[in-house]
Amino acid sequence: MPPTATLAPALPETGWPPPYLLYLGNAPDHLAAKTARGLAQWRPQWCVGQFRGPDCRTTLGLPDMGFEEAVAAGANTMIVGVANAGGRMDAGTVQDVVAALDAGMNIASGLHQRLSSHPAIVEAAGRNGRCLFDARQPPPLAVGNGARRAGRRLLTVGTDCSVGKMYATLAIERELQARGVRADFRATGQTGIFVAGAGVPIDAVVADFISGAAEWISPAREDGGWDLIEGQGSLFHPSYAGVSLGLLHGSQADALVLCHEPGRAHMRGLPHYPVPDLKACLEANLQAARLTNPDVIAVGVAANTSHAPDAETAARQCREIEDALGLPCEDPVRTGTARIVDRLQSCFAD
Amino acid sequence: MPPTATLAPALPETGWPPPYLLYLGNAPDHLAAKTARGLAQWRPQWCVGQFRGPDCRTTLGLPDMGFEEAVAAGANTMIVGVANAGGRMDAGTVQDVVAALDAGMNIASGLHQRLSSHPAIVEAAGRNGRCLFDARQPPPLAVGNGARRAGRRLLTVGTDCSVGKMYATLAIERELQARGVRADFRATGQTGIFVAGAGVPIDAVVADFISGAAEWISPAREDGGWDLIEGQGSLFHPSYAGVSLGLLHGSQADALVLCHEPGRAHMRGLPHYPVPDLKACLEANLQAARLTNPDVIAVGVAANTSHAPDAETAARQCREIEDALGLPCEDPVRTGTARIVDRLQSCFAD
Repeated sequence: MPPTATLAPALPETGWPPPYLLYLGNAPDHLAAKTARGLAQWRPQWCVGQFRGPDCRTTLGLPDMGFEEAVAAGANTMIVGVANAGGRMDAGTVQDVVAALDAGMNIASGLHQRLSSHPAIVEAAGRNGRCLFDARQPPPLAVGNGARRAGRRLLTVGTDCSVGKMYATLAIERELQARGVRADFRATGQTGIFVAGAGVPIDAVVADFISGAAEWISPAREDGGWDLIEGQGSLFHPSYAGVSLGLLHGSQADALVLCHEPGRAHMRGLPHYPVPDLKACLEANLQAARLTNPDVIAVGVAANTSHAPDAETAARQCREIEDALGLPCEDPVRTGTARIVDRLQSCFAD
Repeated sequence: MPPTATLAPALPETGWPPPYLLYLGNAPDHLAAKTARGLAQWRPQWCVGQFRGPDCRTTLGLPDMGFEEAVAAGANTMIVGVANAGGRMDAGTVQDVVAALDAGMNIASGLHQRLSSHPAIVEAAGRNGRCLFDARQPPPLAVGNGARRAGRRLLTVGTDCSVGKMYATLAIERELQARGVRADFRATGQTGIFVAGAGVPIDAVVADFISGAAEWISPAREDGGWDLIEGQGSLFHPSYAGVSLGLLHGSQADALVLCHEPGRAHMRGLPHYPVPDLKACLEANLQAARLTNPDVIAVGVAANTSHAPDAETAARQCREIEDALGLPCEDPVRTGTARIVDRLQSCFAD
């Protein structure tokens, strides 16, 4: 069920203006182009083409374009959506970015290293009157205050990192919008920020401001709609649990959706840490979430069954989780999130 | 039981060299001089004097000195230990820092704003061949890996912020050292960093590196001694719990000491949040800590009874906690930490 142009939200009002040229450079594999891929998948109507270097080993299936060609096709901004080791920009990429500025595009980057740290890029932006956007640069933030605020919020939480929290959150947004419900994806990671056109890179925020960042991206809303907050990490991942807890507290979530990859052998990057039991994981998340919203409930499980050999196995995996937790369990990629959203709507019927 | 020179650890080998002149500037009250006060209290043997401006409204009880006078008395470093609103340095302070550099001292600061952000200070340091140290500047850190490491570690955790975690940790260090046990205070806040001469300002670390910072300050040790890690915040404080959880995971604590202020009306700064039940708070900390150290236990409670009207009331407050939790409870300021350390030693007898 790929997203379609008609269901996608309006163009973002601020930040880096679409349409986009997606810069893949010499990305060595699919994973290196993860951010560009997320954008091409969820906001295809904003993407006019891709730029690939001579050693590029991946494609998004978009038309290949040079910089002048992209501008002629209407591109306003080039998105540097490739992840190099260490998040740095090599000399060839810097040269390409300068050429794209000279062709007339703005530049947005998801790398750790700031565009503004390269004098040649800053100079070219000034010369051409173009803008530079660093998605990994957090906005000025305040410390979280925990004060109850208006609006309904759903947060995805995970048994581990990289289990599909962004995908699940976006799929729920699409399903709610298709039903005519106001719903907005609130991004907390670089790919999500490009998809939403706004957000906070919560892993780059200073530690004291994690919950404040969550409060900032999902402010009080009075229109009866839902803020759907992209979760990060896991309370059970010893490297990143602090981020997950701050996000849980700042979100004041009314509803949680647990995200899980059946069959994963161990926590991402940590062979000595087993994936937590789903029930214990969900209970720990609910317990922590109650600090800022005592009424929080779980409404479903999003299973990432991409490693299941066939649809039947995937369906069985979902059924097993469903039986164990008593919550609807679906793979957003295989079957969508209709039953999770059914449960959400029945629990929060006005 | 104030600390005495004989029990304090050796001079720090790196960083800002003692002895110190403590700069109070025009601190309007005692709270503004909190960092300088902690240093004067816990490391009096490193402090030769204090500098007070014409509008200063507090004192540490140290000899008042000008910059030249302090250098003549042996001061190697001036500690800027006053907290202004926003952690910024006013023009008068910048002028004083330049004068102190011209007199021949190094400068160490605990303010959010970096010394190096003032060109006049950088220029004066260069001119005099002196060094600038920013205690709030975290070292380069790695993401935590959760791998079990050698050594014994104790972490103080709290029902709230500002309940006496640093004081309790330092008091336990003093008690263990007095018993001939190798023990080192590991600092996570600016005052603690000045007292220890090293540490990580964990609230200033980027969110992804919280547990990595805790691993960094308490690396594997093989000498049978204890690392005593200064806790921060509280799992139950909606503004800062992420920091507390990352610290809990990265510490891999063998022993926890719960810190609490009896009678506190609500969470610090948040009138709408009650202080958690001690038993529930301790259990939540133990549960979270078990992720990286399944054998973690609690060994005592440090009660801050500074608001009790008399010693009898304070003793009763401690007794009540002791009965409720089945753990030794002491006020480190009033009675020391002998019984908590007795419990620690009996639980971890070789």
